[in-house]
Amino acid sequence: MLITKEYISPIALEIIEQNPYAQSAVFEVRDSIGSIVSRNLSYFVVNCSAKNCNGVVPIKEKCYAKLEEYYLWYREKPLDYLHNDQQKGGPIDVYKEFGLAADPFKVGLEFETGNISSAHRSMNKLKVGLIKGELDMAMLIMPTKQLSYYLTDRVSNYEELQPYFLHLEDSPFVVFGFDAEEYSSTADLLPKGRDGMSDRSIRKWRQ
Amino acid sequence: MLITKEYISPIALEIIEQNPYAQSAVFEVRDSIGSIVSRNLSYFVVNCSAKNCNGVVPIKEKCYAKLEEYYLWYREKPLDYLHNDQQKGGPIDVYKEFGLAADPFKVGLEFETGNISSAHRSMNKLKVGLIKGELDMAMLIMPTKQLSYYLTDRVSNYEELQPYFLHLEDSPFVVFGFDAEEYSSTADLLPKGRDGMSDRSIRKWRQ
Repeated sequence: MLITKEYISPIALEIIEQNPYAQSAVFEVRDSIGSIVSRNLSYFVVNCSAKNCNGVVPIKEKCYAKLEEYYLWYREKPLDYLHNDQQKGGPIDVYKEFGLAADPFKVGLEFETGNISSAHRSMNKLKVGLIKGELDMAMLIMPTKQLSYYLTDRVSNYEELQPYFLHLEDSPFVVFGFDAEEYSSTADLLPKGRDGMSDRSIRKWRQ
Repeated sequence: MLITKEYISPIALEIIEQNPYAQSAVFEVRDSIGSIVSRNLSYFVVNCSAKNCNGVVPIKEKCYAKLEEYYLWYREKPLDYLHNDQQKGGPIDVYKEFGLAADPFKVGLEFETGNISSAHRSMNKLKVGLIKGELDMAMLIMPTKQLSYYLTDRVSNYEELQPYFLHLEDSPFVVFGFDAEEYSSTADLLPKGRDGMSDRSIRKWRQ
């Protein structure tokens, strides 16, 4: 997949310029999005034969698998402030600590595959982590509007959330919008839900 | 109904103390919540015979009817910033301008009857209005956790959103949590969806 849209807040930009851990985090996430490719190809071809014809979860899974298995990010990191209470927002989806164990640079990430309301909740949850000092940088990954047309019905897209990025201006926040390199009506369809997904065990945060 | 929980941000508190229009807005909203009463009673008795046994929309409707018909608030005020695009958050649910027509004090309100994700979106939308100067004060109304147990499944509640009020600390924002005065297993059930609702025409914003 290609990152075709990006929002990098002024503070995030400053941190990325100065802090090699922030640079590494962004590099690893970009690379994990870039490594979502179609079988036997070095790029991604999405089936565009009908509106909402593909599932979005297989795309997220490929990105997470790379982050977990190759770059050693963790899954499901609870925020202390939210008391691990699922009702109050649940854990951060993907998380990594860079640098010194005693004083790590903490990055949280969500790959949004829900509807627009769910995207608002993800954004607000990541912002809580930043405000409470449990994260030093936050990232959100979403499909672009063009791609989302061919994904699960009502999945939120970058452009839909974009007017709300003004809530992120004072936070070290990065949002990536991704798109397929190619559209074809004969490409493999991405299954919806968890059909055909391998039962890999996630690299869950424990501490 | 009784307001049993409230969040008033420091800035909102300051404005309410100094500005009679802000005071009027809060008074009118409090009164409209207080006037949600059971038939032939001066208070509200909710049926507590089973989890999720009541609908929540009839409660909202009573509050809105009072605000519109008695206090002359408007419905569905679009925010210019969001370009009236439903996809990007839709209009503000309830809206009133106080004072001078040339320089009014503008208040926006949402009575949240959706799930917790939807409550995040409402909060973020109202915040957009504040940041862009299209609102001078914002209010959100939600059932308390105790009451929501007997309302539509998954309706969000005050306590569930409360950890996120820290995003409101720098905004003139008020959140009210309401509860019934009495619980009884023999009280009338509130219908779900729009069953039995009168088709009153809303006082829609036009300008």
